[in-house]
Amino acid sequence: MQDISMETQLEFIRKLDGMKSILRMNILLDESRREDDAQHSWHAAMMAMVMQEYAAEPIDITRVVPMLLVHDLVEIGAGDTYAYDEVGNQSKEKREREAADALFGPMGEQGRQMRALWEEFEEAKTADARFAAAMDRIQPLLGNYWSEGKVWKENRIDYSQVYVRNEVTRRIVPRLWEKVDTFLQDAVRKGMLTDREHRVLQDLECVEEKD
Amino acid sequence: MQDISMETQLEFIRKLDGMKSILRMNILLDESRREDDAQHSWHAAMMAMVMQEYAAEPIDITRVVPMLLVHDLVEIGAGDTYAYDEVGNQSKEKREREAADALFGPMGEQGRQMRALWEEFEEAKTADARFAAAMDRIQPLLGNYWSEGKVWKENRIDYSQVYVRNEVTRRIVPRLWEKVDTFLQDAVRKGMLTDREHRVLQDLECVEEKD
Repeated sequence: MQDISMETQLEFIRKLDGMKSILRMNILLDESRREDDAQHSWHAAMMAMVMQEYAAEPIDITRVVPMLLVHDLVEIGAGDTYAYDEVGNQSKEKREREAADALFGPMGEQGRQMRALWEEFEEAKTADARFAAAMDRIQPLLGNYWSEGKVWKENRIDYSQVYVRNEVTRRIVPRLWEKVDTFLQDAVRKGMLTDREHRVLQDLECVEEKD
Repeated sequence: MQDISMETQLEFIRKLDGMKSILRMNILLDESRREDDAQHSWHAAMMAMVMQEYAAEPIDITRVVPMLLVHDLVEIGAGDTYAYDEVGNQSKEKREREAADALFGPMGEQGRQMRALWEEFEEAKTADARFAAAMDRIQPLLGNYWSEGKVWKENRIDYSQVYVRNEVTRRIVPRLWEKVDTFLQDAVRKGMLTDREHRVLQDLECVEEKD
């Protein structure tokens, strides 16, 4: 038996429309506009279904898909925070917690279940959450590469930043990461990504060699 | 063991981006632009999760959600056909079958599974497919009502057209339909939907009364 009314559920479904107007940094491959949260969530869920065989630990895809569908819902209210925006990421946690209260609070047991899925995703302590996180990282990464690194270039993103952000990807879908990393190497060669850290390392090696 | 390469899977994931640029008739609630297929698929899948209790026959939500995520994929290639476009709907079947060949053909067993889900949806012979179809109908219906019937008005849509299109909704989620129908009645009262058929019926009744 449901502990909330159909009116409350319909109001929740109405609020979900907000996801379609929360714009992310990356752009669509046809470059017509920036991607939104609804599109991203759908694409990441599809990717999870197609790429599940590459998970390095057992996952339950029937949990991963709903998790990816709800993982960005708190951005209704909190907005999207660019992965490489350090200032924005400091206030992100508080903003998202408040947004979760507003969105899931009125939804009774269904709200508690969705919130639990979102929290599991954020904590990344289960295999399902880690695999979902890897899909969440790779989806915009591939989009950026396939749109000739336009957004990476505009924001002068460095290879090392993408590398660090994909720690979970390397651990959870290593074979997929191997392939993705060849894209990143290509992106560096073509000037889509800078490679400052690497150059620093190379410089250090030169100094050492000279010593 | 997978019968296709990771490159083929990545190419499929790349093609999926096309869903974000296939525009549908209905608009977002903030009226900023028309909804696209990726957004619609995500929203319909979310709605299925929230509204599953209203299904009048047993359903397996772990099949319904992926079905809704893939149900419009063939529009990559075939394009969207407006529900009330009679001419477009005559060529729809052939266009979609060809698009399915192009999209799912190279994807081996995964492609066959996705195609089977899409065909199950189209045939509407299983409880899962019928429930998914009801969500597919209600999602834009609610969007149209919540955006003051702008698209209905522009296309002079009649209550009877929405009613006929939602035959599956009435059968499969009757309690939800009851509520939705109060929205439609309200839409008629406020001039968002015409009510020509009803008027014809009323006229007939008047004639009969006069006789």
